[in-house]
Amino acid sequence: MARLGINQYGKAETHLVRVVRDSAVHEVRDLTVSVALSGELEAVHLEGDNAAVLATDTQNNTVSAFAKVFGVVTPEEFAARLARHFLGGPITRARVEVNEVPWTRLSDHAFTQSSREARVACVIADGDATFYASGIAGLIVLKTTDSEFHGFPRDRYTTLQETTDRILATSLTVGWRYTGSAIDGDIDYDATYAGVRDLLLATFADVHSLALQQTIFEMGKAVLERYDAIAEISLSCPNKHHFLVDLAPFGLDNPGEVFFAADRPYGLIQATVRREDS
Amino acid sequence: MARLGINQYGKAETHLVRVVRDSAVHEVRDLTVSVALSGELEAVHLEGDNAAVLATDTQNNTVSAFAKVFGVVTPEEFAARLARHFLGGPITRARVEVNEVPWTRLSDHAFTQSSREARVACVIADGDATFYASGIAGLIVLKTTDSEFHGFPRDRYTTLQETTDRILATSLTVGWRYTGSAIDGDIDYDATYAGVRDLLLATFADVHSLALQQTIFEMGKAVLERYDAIAEISLSCPNKHHFLVDLAPFGLDNPGEVFFAADRPYGLIQATVRREDS
Amino acid sequence: MARLGINQYGKAETHLVRVVRDSAVHEVRDLTVSVALSGELEAVHLEGDNAAVLATDTQNNTVSAFAKVFGVVTPEEFAARLARHFLGGPITRARVEVNEVPWTRLSDHAFTQSSREARVACVIADGDATFYASGIAGLIVLKTTDSEFHGFPRDRYTTLQETTDRILATSLTVGWRYTGSAIDGDIDYDATYAGVRDLLLATFADVHSLALQQTIFEMGKAVLERYDAIAEISLSCPNKHHFLVDLAPFGLDNPGEVFFAADRPYGLIQATVRREDS
Amino acid sequence: MARLGINQYGKAETHLVRVVRDSAVHEVRDLTVSVALSGELEAVHLEGDNAAVLATDTQNNTVSAFAKVFGVVTPEEFAARLARHFLGGPITRARVEVNEVPWTRLSDHAFTQSSREARVACVIADGDATFYASGIAGLIVLKTTDSEFHGFPRDRYTTLQETTDRILATSLTVGWRYTGSAIDGDIDYDATYAGVRDLLLATFADVHSLALQQTIFEMGKAVLERYDAIAEISLSCPNKHHFLVDLAPFGLDNPGEVFFAADRPYGLIQATVRREDS
Repeated sequence: MARLGINQYGKAETHLVRVVRDSAVHEVRDLTVSVALSGELEAVHLEGDNAAVLATDTQNNTVSAFAKVFGVVTPEEFAARLARHFLGGPITRARVEVNEVPWTRLSDHAFTQSSREARVACVIADGDATFYASGIAGLIVLKTTDSEFHGFPRDRYTTLQETTDRILATSLTVGWRYTGSAIDGDIDYDATYAGVRDLLLATFADVHSLALQQTIFEMGKAVLERYDAIAEISLSCPNKHHFLVDLAPFGLDNPGEVFFAADRPYGLIQATVRREDS
Repeated sequence: MARLGINQYGKAETHLVRVVRDSAVHEVRDLTVSVALSGELEAVHLEGDNAAVLATDTQNNTVSAFAKVFGVVTPEEFAARLARHFLGGPITRARVEVNEVPWTRLSDHAFTQSSREARVACVIADGDATFYASGIAGLIVLKTTDSEFHGFPRDRYTTLQETTDRILATSLTVGWRYTGSAIDGDIDYDATYAGVRDLLLATFADVHSLALQQTIFEMGKAVLERYDAIAEISLSCPNKHHFLVDLAPFGLDNPGEVFFAADRPYGLIQATVRREDS
Repeated sequence: MARLGINQYGKAETHLVRVVRDSAVHEVRDLTVSVALSGELEAVHLEGDNAAVLATDTQNNTVSAFAKVFGVVTPEEFAARLARHFLGGPITRARVEVNEVPWTRLSDHAFTQSSREARVACVIADGDATFYASGIAGLIVLKTTDSEFHGFPRDRYTTLQETTDRILATSLTVGWRYTGSAIDGDIDYDATYAGVRDLLLATFADVHSLALQQTIFEMGKAVLERYDAIAEISLSCPNKHHFLVDLAPFGLDNPGEVFFAADRPYGLIQATVRREDS
Repeated sequence: MARLGINQYGKAETHLVRVVRDSAVHEVRDLTVSVALSGELEAVHLEGDNAAVLATDTQNNTVSAFAKVFGVVTPEEFAARLARHFLGGPITRARVEVNEVPWTRLSDHAFTQSSREARVACVIADGDATFYASGIAGLIVLKTTDSEFHGFPRDRYTTLQETTDRILATSLTVGWRYTGSAIDGDIDYDATYAGVRDLLLATFADVHSLALQQTIFEMGKAVLERYDAIAEISLSCPNKHHFLVDLAPFGLDNPGEVFFAADRPYGLIQATVRREDS
């Protein structure tokens, strides 16, 4: 009666540092790699037969060996190489996600890790096709003005005051998927990543916000307009509320100067922006 | 050219405690509630027009008011009541997730929080339909024997030794969806939750494991066989590796006695078990 | 001109599971061990000379080997054995802290981890002396009434209303130090741990609270009165604020029924209670 | 018999954002403030008498009001102003810690938070004296070579191989205390913070490391030699182990190129460097 539904398995969060030391000026890539495989895996679920189950330990070893042999040209290229490798036999679909955290150079061989953000690459190999996506995790932004919120419906549980000037802050998790033609690998992933990141920041800064939904739609739209190779972009944004502190009891006004930064609850705004024709 | 794709928004992680103090013996329910709404929301994304956007602050207020007026019969009932409330006008789909952490009674009005686990209820109201799901987050289990792992393929990157006796440990995230007929509300959610939890633990303990995949399939299967109202169950399980420490350099053997509990990487095993006919 | 001041080093957070499998009914101890050594360590700081520096990797190995050879009678005994071992030569002081998380038995060899709390043992070996301390991390408690807070001073920045009925909730971190005579090892650490824990919970439940400070003093006092071997006890308690939600805008009263559980900021109340003569 | 020992209380982790909007170019300061007060507090502990207990809610309000009235010249100045304010009556000692996270300007009023690090200021007001300390939390550094570790003692539990080339990585928590004469406030705290930070990074990069202890002593020494106003500096450094992956089973050598970044256990190295005469 019970049947196996959708399933996958793999080694998650292999954390590797790859050093390139061909010259006195070392390079360092800091990667956390997660693999998820699926395919003809009924036997292991129903009978405990592991004949089709490439051990997650082997996957871990493979990540290390590939880091040595092929290096990390881009996280996307590295993920794709691994995903294609794991396909075959019972494995008909392989998903590899790479999170890279940046290190800033201090000297030829010393570095500091200045950023909270991670660059993300996610590649799915499925039969003959290979699908590429890229993203950013933890892009934190805040604006101190040029953000309004009003015109929302008022029901019996509404107490929020309308405002024409508030702090808008979020920590963006962004992912974008490349169009079919881009799959062929003729994308400059490094340049695209840097360009998308700049565009997201510039748009956040420039758009006069009437709602976080509007801001993130504009951010996504700007990316699609600039990058033909991107088919769609998804943004997930906690509205990190900054509440104006009421200082009136102390005989003080507070014209947008002192805010309490709340942890929870938070608004969570999520949208995908896609090409008309995709 | 840019078009709005899939989107939702809402207040996440409203953390409330509801006290029932009708008698000297108080009851306490500790809930974290997340709301996500979707529907006709183009105007706010494209033009910043909030006429359709029930403020997340209003959602937060509504959760509090409903906790007062209706109390918390079950997390499922509470989630459903909220989800149905938010439907209407431009909002065509409402998802409400409730995480409840248990408190153990010390006296008439004092409690201690003994468990890491959360009970989860997730209800989606979509037009006339209301879909119920329940789950458990953080059900941690370990067995010290009766777990084998062998017969896996060996490629050039395989170094893992086969074993007929290892520690198997995981932290289960489990969710189950009820069948159509169950939606009508004739389910005893409290009893089902307790029963499923017991069955998961008993099955984990009883099944001689040849692979974590087999163990979780058996766990899901046992639940489906016992509970007709459950259509499918999904289990997500990090394989929390416990490596046998090599004590030979110190002249000591280690017949399954001392293990290093690793943090990362970990295997991640995920499967859904569903009814043949669902 | 620059001089080495106070210093220590060691391996932190070695996470081991020790299985006792002498019979079909297995026992499991889940320990995280941190070692800190100090002594004549100028040479390594000033010249990079490691002759006095027992590698932290060796410390890690030693923890594993001791777990095999001696087992874990109590966390205190295990910590003491390690601390005494590390003394000698340049090392004149060794501090070993053991955090143990409990597992609840499901069957002869299966377990579930039901608790958030950790039992803590901390032993310092210093020359001929060995000092023992025990503790609890993460003992979470809440009472729904029998807690007041009033009579506090009001200055120009005071807006808090006085209350004769509030929720009181905290997550206790507790540590107690044994008296000199107790160092000899004639203490039943397991019974003392269980007894202190019960006494802390019972006192929290029983004391009518006028301030969290008063509650924790009473908790500490109860422990000292019951256990002669305990010289002093320290309690660190975040006041986990539960704010009564204002439901008046919705035409609802709220007589101690619906509370918002805040994350930050929180009061932090810390006190040591000690024997008059210690 | 039971007596009150050392104790303190206060509001912890008030998270505020202070915006300066005197011109079109806004400034933003992001502060998390923790207050701890002590003094004649027997009455509240022994009798629940709150007459001496300035409510932690009042402390929170005071932090907000001071942010409005005085702004944030430096975190040190802000902490000192608060600490001095809280002294008086039964309160004989006030400790205020401020953690500031930096925001990087995107435009006149938009910002991104690029760093993981926090700048820390800690001021203690005690009677007539005011003590200043500053620090950095989470300064992450790594070097890919110029780090050796050998010459350590070998006992029966030692298996670690000696190395003349390893990765050295840590996340520094650093705090420095100013000399007596510096308390008078004639310190440029901003310049000192930036200068110390630069010096720590440069020293980490430049010193050929024979042990992490030696590296951090050199870092502290460099700071003391440059800044007369600093009396002592403490560094706490988890040795974030990067283990060379053994690729030999795959027919590959690994000359310092692929490393596994381990989470736990880790070495923890802590030292204070102080002026000869302090």
